Amino acid sequence: MLENIFKSLPPETTKEVFDVLLQNKHIRIERIVSAGHTSPASGWYDQEENEWVIVLEGAGTILFEDGRKVTLNKGDFLHIPAHEKHKVAWTDPDRLTIWLAVHYSGIAIFD
Amino acid sequence: MLENIFKSLPPETTKEVFDVLLQNKHIRIERIVSAGHTSPASGWYDQEENEWVIVLEGAGTILFEDGRKVTLNKGDFLHIPAHEKHKVAWTDPDRLTIWLAVHYSGIAIFD
Repeated sequence: MLENIFKSLPPETTKEVFDVLLQNKHIRIERIVSAGHTSPASGWYDQEENEWVIVLEGAGTILFEDGRKVTLNKGDFLHIPAHEKHKVAWTDPDRLTIWLAVHYSGIAIFD
Repeated sequence: MLENIFKSLPPETTKEVFDVLLQNKHIRIERIVSAGHTSPASGWYDQEENEWVIVLEGAGTILFEDGRKVTLNKGDFLHIPAHEKHKVAWTDPDRLTIWLAVHYSGIAIFD
């Protein structure tokens, strides 16, 4: 079945919206829609799985525990190894930011 | 390291260009750039792994062995289970088509 990642966008934007597009034992493909949202001020994402993430529309900044900040604009992609603590420090408040994230298990090649 | 999927495009477009962005035991993430290319007239892709594919720019048509044709425009995504024979029947000759493909092993959920 054909679907479109830029359609069926969430009607309300009071929080980030996660949609699982596909999931099995090894991978999970997710669409994340943000509208100026950030992660909660305290705490970090500390994920069991590696994540490959790309911004398809909008812009967002990821903050790592070591202080590194990476801003992703349209088309930018990044690899986040499992247990590399991070959070979303900023997303563009003036438009939707659409992320595509591929979470996967096993040894990451691009660490 | 931050990279951009719309940059470092292949300088010549006499054939489809495949770039592996990430690969491990379970998954392979690939960028495919087409410029009016199609699969060879004879033969089918008969893949050992499942494929989740999205068109990020341009447009392309996938033909399945059962005669089904699916045209993907920007943002459209499709799941192709392992061993579902298919080929690329058409891509837009007037601009680049950029596909993002996630190949993965294991039982596909969305068959």
